[in-house]
Formats: sequence, C-alpha cells, structure tokens
Amino acid sequence: MTPKVARFLADTQPATPCLVLDVDRVAENFRRLRDALPLARIYYAVKANPAAPVLERLVGLGSHFDAASFQEVSMCLDAGAEPEAISYGNTIKRERDIAAAYARGVRMFAFDSEMELEKLARSAPGSRVYCRILVGNDGAEWPLSRKFGCEVEMAKDLMVKAGELGLDPFGLSFHVGSQQTRTAAYEAAIAKVAMLFTDLVDAGVKVRMVNLGGGYPVRYKSEVPEIVEIGAAIMGAMVEHFGNSLPEIVIEPGRFLVADAGVVQAEVVLVSRKAANDPVRWVYLDIGRFGGLAETEGEAIKYAFRTPHDGTADGPVTIAGPTCDSTDTLYEKSNYRLPTALTAGDRVELLATGAYVTSYASQKFNGFSPLEEHYI
Amino acid sequence: MTPKVARFLADTQPATPCLVLDVDRVAENFRRLRDALPLARIYYAVKANPAAPVLERLVGLGSHFDAASFQEVSMCLDAGAEPEAISYGNTIKRERDIAAAYARGVRMFAFDSEMELEKLARSAPGSRVYCRILVGNDGAEWPLSRKFGCEVEMAKDLMVKAGELGLDPFGLSFHVGSQQTRTAAYEAAIAKVAMLFTDLVDAGVKVRMVNLGGGYPVRYKSEVPEIVEIGAAIMGAMVEHFGNSLPEIVIEPGRFLVADAGVVQAEVVLVSRKAANDPVRWVYLDIGRFGGLAETEGEAIKYAFRTPHDGTADGPVTIAGPTCDSTDTLYEKSNYRLPTALTAGDRVELLATGAYVTSYASQKFNGFSPLEEHYI
Repeated sequence: MTPKVARFLADTQPATPCLVLDVDRVAENFRRLRDALPLARIYYAVKANPAAPVLERLVGLGSHFDAASFQEVSMCLDAGAEPEAISYGNTIKRERDIAAAYARGVRMFAFDSEMELEKLARSAPGSRVYCRILVGNDGAEWPLSRKFGCEVEMAKDLMVKAGELGLDPFGLSFHVGSQQTRTAAYEAAIAKVAMLFTDLVDAGVKVRMVNLGGGYPVRYKSEVPEIVEIGAAIMGAMVEHFGNSLPEIVIEPGRFLVADAGVVQAEVVLVSRKAANDPVRWVYLDIGRFGGLAETEGEAIKYAFRTPHDGTADGPVTIAGPTCDSTDTLYEKSNYRLPTALTAGDRVELLATGAYVTSYASQKFNGFSPLEEHYI
Repeated sequence: MTPKVARFLADTQPATPCLVLDVDRVAENFRRLRDALPLARIYYAVKANPAAPVLERLVGLGSHFDAASFQEVSMCLDAGAEPEAISYGNTIKRERDIAAAYARGVRMFAFDSEMELEKLARSAPGSRVYCRILVGNDGAEWPLSRKFGCEVEMAKDLMVKAGELGLDPFGLSFHVGSQQTRTAAYEAAIAKVAMLFTDLVDAGVKVRMVNLGGGYPVRYKSEVPEIVEIGAAIMGAMVEHFGNSLPEIVIEPGRFLVADAGVVQAEVVLVSRKAANDPVRWVYLDIGRFGGLAETEGEAIKYAFRTPHDGTADGPVTIAGPTCDSTDTLYEKSNYRLPTALTAGDRVELLATGAYVTSYASQKFNGFSPLEEHYI
C-alpha cells in the first residue's frame, strides 16, 4: 500500500467495499518496466483496469494500448490516446466492431484464425495484423488454456494469406499466461516464435514484429522474480534467437502496471464457526468473487491481507464473500490465517488489487452494487 | 422457449446479447410448484432474477420473498410486497442492513452463528429467526459446500440462545444444493432436521417452522425429475418424520420459477480451429462467463442451444465467450456438438437462462456492457 493510499483511507474512511488506486504508482511501474525492457514498446492491457485516470496518466507517459473491445478502443481515444497507439488485441471481434475501430483510425489488429482474417480484410483493409500462436503456460498462476492462438503450422499459412488478402502481415504474438513466475516460459515461447519468424521471412513474408504479450508477475502473498530479471531473460532469449537483427518488440502488461497501485478496503461482516470445537473460523467480507475478486477462482490469485489486529494472535480461517452463493468463497485451501481478534465491522485491506477487480464486478448479484473506485 | 419469446425474437430482432423472459411462464411455474407442494409457503429467492416485472407478477400471485440483501428487501417492497411477506434469508448480514430491513417492517431473518444472532437481537429485536443447518448436497449440479449453515449441535444451542436473547426461535432451514436432481437429498435432510426439531421441542423451544430451501431442478440439457415427484418425496418424508403434527413449511425456489421462462439470444462472433486438421471447432459467442453465464463455471450448468442450422450436419465444439480471458470458456469437456454450417453473425439461443444470469453479469469486463433484458 502506498503512503498516499494509506493516507486517503485514514482521512476519508470511504464506504466499503472500495478500491483506492494511486496513479503515481502506475507511472512508477511504467518506468520500471521500460527500464527493464528498453527495446520494447509498451501496450497497456486496458482490461486490467480501464479507469480514465489510469489511461490518461499512461497517455501522458507515451504508453501504447492493447484494447479487448471497441468499447476499450473508445476509452483509450477518450483518454487522449492517438489511434496509432492502439492495438485491437482480441482475436475474437465482431466485424462491425472491427469496422468501427478502423473508422476511428485503428490500424493494428490481432487474429488467430482464417475467419477473423477475412473479417479484417473486409473491414480493416491494409491494416497491420499479427497472428497469435499457442505456447506453453507452465508456471503461470492464471494460465490461459487454448482459447487464444493457433498452432505454428496454421499461423504460417495464415500470415501468408494475410498478405494475399491485402493486409500487412506485421507480426507474431504469444502469451505465456498471466502472473507468470518462470522466465523459462518466455524463453521457450521466444524460441518457438523465432523459428516461425525465420520460416516466414524465408517464405517472403515481411514480418517484422514480435509481441511478447503480458504476464509479468506481481507480488501478492508470495515473492515473484524481479522485473529486471525477467527483462534480462527475455532479451537474452531474443538475442540468442534473432541475433543482431532484432524485430520490433511489443509487450502488453496489464497487471504489472496497476495491481500494486491499488488496495481494496472491505468490511468484515461476520466471523463464525461451523461447530463449537471447529478450529477454523469463517470470515465473511462485504466483497467476494462476484464483487470483483474473480481471480480468486480456484484460489489462483492469493491476495495479502492487512487487518487492524495484525501482530496479535492468529488462527486458521476460510475467507468468503457476502452473497448467498457458496462458490463465493475466496480461500478455503490456501492456509490463510487471520487474527483471532477480528470481528464484524473491522475494516481490512486486500493489497495489490488494482488489476482485474473493478471491471469483473457483477452489476448487481444479490442486489450488491459494484465496489466504489477512488483514483488519487 | 415459450411461443411469446419466440415471437418477440422474430419480430424485434433485439441487439445481442440479451435475455427475453416470459413472465406468464413464471406464473405458470409458481402454480405448478404450489400444486406440487400445497402445504408449503413459497418464498421466491429474489437473487435468481430480481427484475421488477418478475417480482410484481409474483406479488400478484401471493408469493413471499427470500431476500439476500437489504437491496433485495427494497426491491421486493418497491414491487408491492408486504414486509411480512419477506424473509431476509442470508446468514451473512451487515448489522446496519439488518436494522434497515427491520425499520422497513421485515421480521423474519436467517442465521447460523452466534455473532449473527447477537446482531439480530440488537437490531431486529423480537423477530422470527431460523437457523440454517448443514446437510449433504450430493446430487446437486450446483452444490453449496459448507459456506452456509452450522452443525446440528451448535444449531441446538443457538436456537435456545435465540429465545434467551428475546428473539422468536421460529424455525430451522437447510439447503440441499441448487439444481438438486435426487429426491433422496431432501429425504436425508428432512430426517436430520426433524431430529433436531424434536430435540428443540423437548427442550422447551417453541420452534414451529421448517424451511426446505430451494434447489428444485430445471431441465437444461438433460432430463430432471418432475416437480410432482419431488413434492411427493418431500411430503412423504415430512409425514414420516413429523407424523400428523406437521410444522409450517417454507420453500425458497429461485431457478424453478424463472429459469425456463427466459432465453438468452447471442451472436456467434467467430468459428475457428486451432490447427487445420483439428476435429474440434471453437465457437465464440458475444456472451460468456463474465457476461452473465457464471453458472457454466466448471461446466456445472449445461445450457441447451438452438441455432438457425439445427437438423443439419454437426460436429464437436468448444464454446467460449468474447473476452480476452481464457477462463471465459463455457464448455470444453461436456461433448457439445453444433452444426458445421454455424458461422459468424448467426444468432443462437441458450434455453432456460432466466435464472442466475442477468445479475451475475460483470459491469464492464473487457469493456462489454451487461446483457440487455426484455420482460414480456
């Protein structure tokens, strides 16, 4: 929690649940990442936190933007981004949304299939397109399965076809999974993409960009590698596989830029036991999986907690949200411990919750409004 | 899909994704349930679909209401419900929300812990309270884990304490899990609650109500038992365990009343393969897990699909949502098949989606607005 956030919480006592996010920390994170990967162009993954104050600060820093939808394209433009600074990075786009983005000046689009390529050729003619390939996600705390990307052989055919359709076969992309904690995942993916890149060059395709995606990890409950270490591993792999003719490099950080800038403050609604002699207490908060903490699904992202009783005796807890849905349980198997003094009405903070929280919040599940947002 | 919904879709061609819900079907379902369990008082679980037209129709039919939050209490009152017809059924309530509901006239509250009982004694003095006990959820497609309820021994102590605190120890409740397909789950739970009920009567506690919860199943992709069969099993178990001195019976249907009244219409955004020879196509819709289809988590609720190409050749598919989140995949392991002719721009319908869809929808994940709702 940054001093500015701590001060805001102490002075304002905002209604809970809420997110308080320090936009200066976003700027710091942007500079740290730029320093760790100076050759890479940063496209902020808007979906991580699309709030206008975040986008505006990043526009001021010269960031580019990775938009998941036409609505996100619009948000970036509204925040002052130039259309040339926006990549429409979702491989799944309605054709009328492609056309709308193109009409607003966007000229860079992702794809991973023939049907998408045909939509792009019709509705965004001449645009730069990049093909996403499937790579391993081992080591990611929020892995990405096979939903996005295609196999290398198909990517090769599609990149050739992109040129035939009048599009600019600009580059290749991959994603090693979000909250990726192993540098080896990047190294393996870069080796894979480099082979395809060389094949394409040999086939006469004017490919010239590699998009390394996002996934750069953030400290939640456990330590993660430093970004300089990840940057060094990435650049080592790029030089190993591309030599001194490096392609343009794009990265799409989301979590890394905004997560540790934000803190969710919540209220303890109830502390109980299921039986008199049960060693585990249940701690129910006024925010849960459907109030924004969607990344606790499967206990994947393990947030760190602060309470007014830290430093006093603690004990094992299950932590759950306030709704009448039992899947709205945050942590049951992750060995969380909280102070035994914790009681209803206490305010607690969930650290590093600036990413993938506000936009996930359900509009009204169980009648609860989405959490309030404060950008300072 | 009811004829009225089919006609609305054909005539209106609404923007997708959207829910179209026939409130006449809700009324029919209410009557069917009342006929199957004539001795039970129906408390509609508002969280299943809190839309005003649904609540208003149910008020007109004499329904009672199970509210999960003070906001849901307000929605019921706004729809014309009497405060006496409302149960605040969440065992996890902020004390100021208890006080607010009490101020509006609500006098029936759930609890499962000592701390909650103390809040109720302070902020809803003299109210009818009922204790939720833990029971098995085997056979439920959306089981409820241990989040709600307490063990029987603790429930006994708490019911005695409720009286000591000046509350009215009105009843006992349980929940066999949502979309419960086995009548044996009700029978086992009733046996358990009846033993506790008798113990409490013997201890001088004036308990007089049993709340059987919800869970009454709906036909999605597979057949489920008929409600008359479930009703008969429940009443058989009640008579077996309570003889001819039956307690007041409360039921809390949500899904059963609204699910098959509603249809979600969606648009196919993309159909693709991960490799040229991959037998499985990926079908991406403009609605997914974060657009309202939250109950597809773990492929728990399996919706049935209608497409414009039904009856033509089909093949295996993975079905996913439109967001840049790979957990936003609906069905990968459930052996869904869809027509090979299916293509981008086609409209498809997801049947029996009137429950647990609209309120789950994220407010803006990936920039997508929540689905539109049409009540006809």
